Amino acid sequence: MFGYEGEGHVILAASVEFMHTATLLHDDVVDESDMRRGKLAARKLWGNQASVLVGDYLLGQAFKMMVDVRSLEALRILSEASAIIAEGEVLQLGAAQDTTTTYDMYLRVIEAKTAALFAAACEVSPEIADKGDEMRAAARKFGLELGYAFQLVDDALDYGGATVDLGKDVGDDFHEGKITLPVIYAMERGSDEDKAFWKRCLEDGDIKDGDLDHAIKLLKDTGALADTVQRARDYGASAIDALSVFPDGPAKQALKEAVDFCIARVS
Amino acid sequence: MFGYEGEGHVILAASVEFMHTATLLHDDVVDESDMRRGKLAARKLWGNQASVLVGDYLLGQAFKMMVDVRSLEALRILSEASAIIAEGEVLQLGAAQDTTTTYDMYLRVIEAKTAALFAAACEVSPEIADKGDEMRAAARKFGLELGYAFQLVDDALDYGGATVDLGKDVGDDFHEGKITLPVIYAMERGSDEDKAFWKRCLEDGDIKDGDLDHAIKLLKDTGALADTVQRARDYGASAIDALSVFPDGPAKQALKEAVDFCIARVS
Repeated sequence: MFGYEGEGHVILAASVEFMHTATLLHDDVVDESDMRRGKLAARKLWGNQASVLVGDYLLGQAFKMMVDVRSLEALRILSEASAIIAEGEVLQLGAAQDTTTTYDMYLRVIEAKTAALFAAACEVSPEIADKGDEMRAAARKFGLELGYAFQLVDDALDYGGATVDLGKDVGDDFHEGKITLPVIYAMERGSDEDKAFWKRCLEDGDIKDGDLDHAIKLLKDTGALADTVQRARDYGASAIDALSVFPDGPAKQALKEAVDFCIARVS
Repeated sequence: MFGYEGEGHVILAASVEFMHTATLLHDDVVDESDMRRGKLAARKLWGNQASVLVGDYLLGQAFKMMVDVRSLEALRILSEASAIIAEGEVLQLGAAQDTTTTYDMYLRVIEAKTAALFAAACEVSPEIADKGDEMRAAARKFGLELGYAFQLVDDALDYGGATVDLGKDVGDDFHEGKITLPVIYAMERGSDEDKAFWKRCLEDGDIKDGDLDHAIKLLKDTGALADTVQRARDYGASAIDALSVFPDGPAKQALKEAVDFCIARVS
């Protein structure tokens, strides 16, 4: 079958989900992750080979579905997002774990790895519904800001969130040496001794027993986690502001609830 | 930049090359190959992580370049090929090494892994040049037949070709248990003892010193290699026949030479 004009938004939504799942399958292979969403990662269940190839299969299907919708502009939006995501992954691989990473640099990383796909996913619907440039730009901005908020919440949760709950699964970013916003804040605000601690753990990868607990204490004492969550709230509010051009109704309400749901994960 | 109408064929050719390179990078990770085209594989030089991510990057760029050409029909042709290739890879992973594989089953495998991309690459040029259905179908058929010929030659070369030259790099398919046309012919024509030999080596993966030499002897004695090369010549002749609808000239001559070049690898 070729052409789904009437239900294009559904097909594009599915193709975004396929693209996203493909990147998760490949990411877990690249990062040698054992767990995904609290369960065994696909690569642990079915192997790295299947994860690479099924990821490629999903990308191929996603591409085919997008083409079937027959909107060149939607294809342009989604193919640019796809290229940005892949470029971001390659750049991250090449970049050393660098504790001099700034807030702006961090934003560029999470834009590539998270917010670009959110933005593209949101932009294509008004595009294929011919809603005009203003709504299209607003939907894109909504997705971008929501993407930032989502990733900041994720980064805070990786250290237990604002209210530290050590029962949760924390510390992945710490052990992988990822420089996320909580760490950037804690470094800026820390003593020379604290800075040396972060550098040893994240840049040198020299992590000892108790270091994660100490990291979480620093993140809490400096307000780094709370401020990261506050920035997520700011981006969430900005996402909701972007919706002002859309008429009130259940669709707009659902988008607002998506923002609340995203922030509530950390509260 | 968005839109390369004048040079679309060049951009599409580059995007096919990117797609192809991406599959090679991923294949070498999946097959744990050490060599590619007689040199160290990318994954040995830069690691599996880089090979997975750079493959994804090339796919993303290929997709973006194809979209830039702004031909929905070319996108459909190439996205279907991309989906077929990926589906073929996944199916191959799941399929046991099965020595009851028939010629038809083998053709379907090589259509997915090789000929589909050749066919799509050939079909998009008359499509974007508005050459009509007849030329488009002819170009597609040329690509498909050339793809078969190419893969058959490749499979013969993996056992040293029709004139066995043991100085070449042979035996990869044998050690991976791949059921290729030379093996299918040799199985059909072999004694019960020969069949048991192939089954032990390719299905059970129980390969001893000297087995590859014995396999090559069987492939030669039964005429399996020579007949595989003859089938490649048949497909090559069929590819050239498909060109009859095109006017004579340097372009057509170059396509014919591509067929000759492909076959000459084994002669």
